Amino acid sequence: MRDFSTDHSALALNTATLGHNLDGFGAGWSPERVIDACAARGFGGIVFWRRELGDRASEIGERVRAAGMQVAGLCRTPYLTGSEAGSEDDAKAAIDMAAALGAPVLTIVTGGTEPGTKGLAESRKRLADRVAALAPYAAARGVRLALEPLNPMFGGNRTCLMTVRDALSVCDAVGAGNVGVAVDVYHVWWDSTLAESLAAARGRIFGYHLCDWLENTRDMLLDRGMMGDGVADLKAIRGAVEAAGYDGLCEVEVFSAADWWQRPPEQVLDAVVARFRAHC
Amino acid sequence: MRDFSTDHSALALNTATLGHNLDGFGAGWSPERVIDACAARGFGGIVFWRRELGDRASEIGERVRAAGMQVAGLCRTPYLTGSEAGSEDDAKAAIDMAAALGAPVLTIVTGGTEPGTKGLAESRKRLADRVAALAPYAAARGVRLALEPLNPMFGGNRTCLMTVRDALSVCDAVGAGNVGVAVDVYHVWWDSTLAESLAAARGRIFGYHLCDWLENTRDMLLDRGMMGDGVADLKAIRGAVEAAGYDGLCEVEVFSAADWWQRPPEQVLDAVVARFRAHC
Repeated sequence: MRDFSTDHSALALNTATLGHNLDGFGAGWSPERVIDACAARGFGGIVFWRRELGDRASEIGERVRAAGMQVAGLCRTPYLTGSEAGSEDDAKAAIDMAAALGAPVLTIVTGGTEPGTKGLAESRKRLADRVAALAPYAAARGVRLALEPLNPMFGGNRTCLMTVRDALSVCDAVGAGNVGVAVDVYHVWWDSTLAESLAAARGRIFGYHLCDWLENTRDMLLDRGMMGDGVADLKAIRGAVEAAGYDGLCEVEVFSAADWWQRPPEQVLDAVVARFRAHC
Repeated sequence: MRDFSTDHSALALNTATLGHNLDGFGAGWSPERVIDACAARGFGGIVFWRRELGDRASEIGERVRAAGMQVAGLCRTPYLTGSEAGSEDDAKAAIDMAAALGAPVLTIVTGGTEPGTKGLAESRKRLADRVAALAPYAAARGVRLALEPLNPMFGGNRTCLMTVRDALSVCDAVGAGNVGVAVDVYHVWWDSTLAESLAAARGRIFGYHLCDWLENTRDMLLDRGMMGDGVADLKAIRGAVEAAGYDGLCEVEVFSAADWWQRPPEQVLDAVVARFRAHC
């Protein structure tokens, strides 16, 4: 297992941690200002959201690399299932943007239960069909697709994949080399079968996301904790992720409307570095 | 699988469905009025909460049976783990009340993560120790203890058991014949491994709870759906529960502050019966 206590070169920032991906939150920093602030602190990479990039994906990707960092990924395709599922054109536009940005991984939050169905089986079939249709398009552009299972509380309208095991079953159904999983501690920390699922995911873990699960979570979506403030066993989870062969960047993604998004970005970034070294 | 479409004698009411177990909600009906209303509609049983019974547990139990119904269970022990864990005396008082009520089953919502620990292993050890200490006391009074896994969103402060599999592992650690699991569709509907976990629970399923998971859940605790209004595959889940040998009462428990708790209790009870026959 890597030692992060004196080396945070594997640390990546998901820009959502600064709050400015949601209307009404964040300090409004430009991508360039985020890049400079991360580079100054020795981050290894950045993950952006589509709304930040507009038609500047290529330019911003170059800027990240010129600053000595990697673009670790892009969030995300439209939902592919459920009543808010997006179009094929929009999904392809996300892939195109990831390619232009130089992002090796595009995250998929699947979307919820297919209209008119019960349970999850039909939704997962639909998901596998849509991912299978997108995978060659992404492969031709050098982009890997990472299915991110979400905490079961997001079933219904946001996800039809609740565990790493669920995500792997869709990967198996798709059978494409550029389709894998993203592992976010917020979503998987509680899963007693996580280590065995991760072992089965060897070679297919395309991302590892960090935050913490607060003991008293006050909001389903926007009350994530900073690493060390919650009850997730972060080192044990990373141990299992690395035992399964993952050696990539570790992406900090803290949705925190009432706490971290109220603080100055400089303070948040300093805390991310310190907490990464101390607790991850 | 039992046919409920023309027979709801297996239907039980968890009184929380009428809202009056939380301060500020519900119509304030007495236990006697709830009993009469359920009996008039052909319910097979009722599950009470401790706060409703005071020192009248024995009297209320007799009243239920005189009305031709069963007391299906009692909610619940204090938390046994986490920062809000209750005392041994209070847990024994819950067992005593279940015995006085004539409730065959007392539900355990475990409580959250033990203070100062990360992950769930330490909390589950503590839980197993406490349940093992209580099991003989309960057995001597004819009371079974049902460990209820909760949706993973309740990790942290409410539960250290997120799946039926988790609950069974604690049952195994305790190794007492009167310790089993309660299966609530709200908490387990999303679990792809549910059927296999239930099969492993044969003989240890002490309760089956009904509601629905709404596509757009607005509140973690108090926005459950009435059966048929959500995305859970209720018949498939009951099929798996019954395939594992469960043939007991099916208990409707709908926490719904903004919807069902705003309606007259008569209307709610009528809906419970109709939805039970049509959707469960």
